[in-house]
Amino acid sequence: MEKEHHFIDKFLKPLSIKSKIFPIGIGDDCAVIDSRDRLITSKDISVSGVHFPNDLEPYFIAYRSVAIAISDIFAMGGTPIAYLLGITHPKPDDSWFESFSRGLNDFNENYDVNLIGGDLTRGELNISITAIGQAPDNLLTRTGANIGDLIFISDSLGKGKKGLIDYRNNRDSNTNHYLKPKLPITLMPKLRQLVTSCIDVSDGLLIDLRRICSSSNVGAIINLNEDMYITDEHDLVAGDDYVLCFTAREEFKEKITALDSSIKKIGQIEEGTKIKVLNKNNEEIKFKKDGWEPFESI
Amino acid sequence: MEKEHHFIDKFLKPLSIKSKIFPIGIGDDCAVIDSRDRLITSKDISVSGVHFPNDLEPYFIAYRSVAIAISDIFAMGGTPIAYLLGITHPKPDDSWFESFSRGLNDFNENYDVNLIGGDLTRGELNISITAIGQAPDNLLTRTGANIGDLIFISDSLGKGKKGLIDYRNNRDSNTNHYLKPKLPITLMPKLRQLVTSCIDVSDGLLIDLRRICSSSNVGAIINLNEDMYITDEHDLVAGDDYVLCFTAREEFKEKITALDSSIKKIGQIEEGTKIKVLNKNNEEIKFKKDGWEPFESI
Repeated sequence: MEKEHHFIDKFLKPLSIKSKIFPIGIGDDCAVIDSRDRLITSKDISVSGVHFPNDLEPYFIAYRSVAIAISDIFAMGGTPIAYLLGITHPKPDDSWFESFSRGLNDFNENYDVNLIGGDLTRGELNISITAIGQAPDNLLTRTGANIGDLIFISDSLGKGKKGLIDYRNNRDSNTNHYLKPKLPITLMPKLRQLVTSCIDVSDGLLIDLRRICSSSNVGAIINLNEDMYITDEHDLVAGDDYVLCFTAREEFKEKITALDSSIKKIGQIEEGTKIKVLNKNNEEIKFKKDGWEPFESI
Repeated sequence: MEKEHHFIDKFLKPLSIKSKIFPIGIGDDCAVIDSRDRLITSKDISVSGVHFPNDLEPYFIAYRSVAIAISDIFAMGGTPIAYLLGITHPKPDDSWFESFSRGLNDFNENYDVNLIGGDLTRGELNISITAIGQAPDNLLTRTGANIGDLIFISDSLGKGKKGLIDYRNNRDSNTNHYLKPKLPITLMPKLRQLVTSCIDVSDGLLIDLRRICSSSNVGAIINLNEDMYITDEHDLVAGDDYVLCFTAREEFKEKITALDSSIKKIGQIEEGTKIKVLNKNNEEIKFKKDGWEPFESI
């Protein structure tokens, strides 16, 4: 069995790029962030059999685990710059790490981020990512939604769910949104000035919009008869989409939808604490659950 | 079964203190660090049955897991300010979280750090801590040891090993260094100007000193006939001590040992790549292993 430092030296150190802001590479007690910017940071854990299939190729485990953590940086309007990587693995080998590190490398190149540190140890397969980004001047928090604001999503829902089904049924990994979520890297710099609140849809639109409503002390109405395009109502609670759900003042509607044809208005913020979903005939649809919950089935 | 947000709201949010540098508490997509200081950060994972006994009280799981991560901040000469907490748990309940959050709270008060964010999900018990600190003007890296420098440890070795034995044999948790490692919070501000390289002894003195030697391209000699006080030679490879092992120029020896009576000179940096350990009769002692290695036994 190879030792911890073998895998770190061979597969992870080469991914860590020294620069002015990251003056030392992997290999000391800490990573150094020589930035004078206000930073934002978030941690996201992906567990084998819970957050991804047990038999998923390491390439996709890496890409997906980093993507869903970095998604939180975009959700606050930030610019991702780096991440720390915690790997708990029952029995690593070169072949696993070769594939895993290719996934990291491809993500890093696509989103211009740097691997700056982490930990590798033994246990059930568990990937823990700490994402780090530069904060925007106006942070997009969950608390800023106001009554009358319109509610938007940055792209259609259900792509994550479809990606997992495609992968399970026929190993389809080609442009698969579950395996390689697309993050709003080009949209965010144009969008962030126009938004009052924002979250990324990780656990399901309804549960994530509820987080905005709860933090902002407002309610919401969603109209399925408007622009919204979903394959079925279940897409509203499916999660794994990593699109943005955000609110903005009504006067910015044209400006916002002109930024990207994928952006759709889906509803409006209201008084109260409830989220109502109306179908094309203006009838309320009830959902048994809002979205994904880690401890639900136990 | 309670939901994720129940445990976060009830037990973790109250530990997150808003301040100028941490302007928003737990509950958004990211934590905000509004600092203009250069930062250092490190990730450390503790797995049940690997890094701590399966039946350990949650209070100590929390205290110890955060302590060993924050230890890396001191090892670089920094001042810890905060951490992110990742909890993977098979089946959490209020009783577990009540004890666990007390452990966090006591650590936070002892070391003046803040819990600023994290993640909670389902799986084998795994605690992932991302420690964040302010960098000192002169970073204490592993690369700065020079030939002729003296080697010191900040406190005696073997306390971690003894603590684990005491706990296993008679549940002794009173001032137990394994369960509640003591970190050099008062020493570091006085020490950092005098040191050429530094590491914390987490996996064993020999393996950690080898990390300094390897990064600095030097060898070392350790003399057990000098100041060093250990109960047996195994203490050199036992780990779990979280004392500092550091090097300094010979001229600072008096100044350094005057800082704290626990600091002991244990050897000297030499040319070469080897670490030699000599006993009281100047005979070389050979060790089968340098220290703890996560993948050794599999």
